[in-house]
Amino acid sequence: MTPYSDFDYRVEPFTEDVAGRISWGNLGNIMLRCASMHAGLHGFGYEDMIKGHHVWVLSRLVIDIDERPRSGEPFSIRTWVDKLYRQFTDRHFSVLRPDGSAYGHASSIWALIDTETRLPADLTQLPEGSFADILMPGTTPPIAPMARMRMKEPQLVATHKAAYCDLDINGHVNSIRYIELMLNRLDADAVRSLGVRRIEVAYCLEAYCHDELQIWTAADEANPARTLFEIRKTTGEVVVKAAFTLRA
Amino acid sequence: MTPYSDFDYRVEPFTEDVAGRISWGNLGNIMLRCASMHAGLHGFGYEDMIKGHHVWVLSRLVIDIDERPRSGEPFSIRTWVDKLYRQFTDRHFSVLRPDGSAYGHASSIWALIDTETRLPADLTQLPEGSFADILMPGTTPPIAPMARMRMKEPQLVATHKAAYCDLDINGHVNSIRYIELMLNRLDADAVRSLGVRRIEVAYCLEAYCHDELQIWTAADEANPARTLFEIRKTTGEVVVKAAFTLRA
Repeated sequence: MTPYSDFDYRVEPFTEDVAGRISWGNLGNIMLRCASMHAGLHGFGYEDMIKGHHVWVLSRLVIDIDERPRSGEPFSIRTWVDKLYRQFTDRHFSVLRPDGSAYGHASSIWALIDTETRLPADLTQLPEGSFADILMPGTTPPIAPMARMRMKEPQLVATHKAAYCDLDINGHVNSIRYIELMLNRLDADAVRSLGVRRIEVAYCLEAYCHDELQIWTAADEANPARTLFEIRKTTGEVVVKAAFTLRA
Repeated sequence: MTPYSDFDYRVEPFTEDVAGRISWGNLGNIMLRCASMHAGLHGFGYEDMIKGHHVWVLSRLVIDIDERPRSGEPFSIRTWVDKLYRQFTDRHFSVLRPDGSAYGHASSIWALIDTETRLPADLTQLPEGSFADILMPGTTPPIAPMARMRMKEPQLVATHKAAYCDLDINGHVNSIRYIELMLNRLDADAVRSLGVRRIEVAYCLEAYCHDELQIWTAADEANPARTLFEIRKTTGEVVVKAAFTLRA
């Protein structure tokens, strides 16, 4: 078995956005699906981990993509893991055309959390086996790492009460759902005509059903194409920090 | 080619709801995808119709399902058309296990709308060919037709401003997105523990980006497991009428 996996998809009808390309929601969730299936193939997937009361939790996600595949187009997601730290592991993704060229790439950081204590497991102390065997050191894809996301004069632009359809199998608000909530607050015409090129998200805290989520935003003074966001609970706790960059 | 099509899927990670079964949003959109792919196989799909400035518009949808497939389970969607009226056509779906038994079924009614005049095409006057050839008369699946949805004393329970991620390729709010907006207004604990068994939706009017949608609800006095909904624009125009029935 190769240390990476390729999963084949096609942009089916009703998975596109208004511009006719696979929607960010579908693309993002497909990446998470591939992460989970790749982990499962190597014995550290959801089913393996939940037996020991652990779940993988997404901590950082950067997606940087020239263009998303269009309606009807086949594409594949390649995913692999390149590093293992004490509390985190780096997983990468490439979105590939059938000829092997890349639409774009993504990088993510995950922690393995104890569902009872909420503490991260020490990944260097996991049982020997396939996890360490599949690391592909030095294979970070060619995208910039997450940049600074400090907001000056943030504005509250929307609230959303987390509900049933927002939840994943763990009862948390789905990681990609936050991306949709923020995309919905960008200028819809600019999103449609220019398109979003890069999405950076830091996941800080989990949200649950009935949580009131506040969506705060601010311009990035250093980059007019980049918009900063925070999603906060009414207590002020930050759930998500993010940046969305429109195509130039 | 058979007059019906079977499309194979598997419940991949991150497509489930909190109960570990394929989410209603994913299941509903997969049905629409299969409808579109089946139509495309027979020469009356999106690409064929848009050339003549027509699009298929969903008018009614009833989904009645014993249980939804669980995480990891393979399933297939069978879809076919049984009747063609002047302005409408009846399309059905079965959600099948690998052994051919049914998780449940769905029935839908579609019109073919002129994108410029917004008027429905006369389906009996379409060019000769595969459409009439694939009708399967008398094959309505064994589910009750849409029942009465008259609300007494409706309550306004939420508003939602339609935004980028709600839109389909035609720029309309996605048909299944309305179902999610209403599911989110049911009691989340009941939805999780009992589960929704039947969803009935009448699509009356299209909504667009930036439309303020009001979600109104009322109990069904004849059936305590059934909750009625309307989604209205601020003008009072009804966009969607619907009913959701919890498992007994």
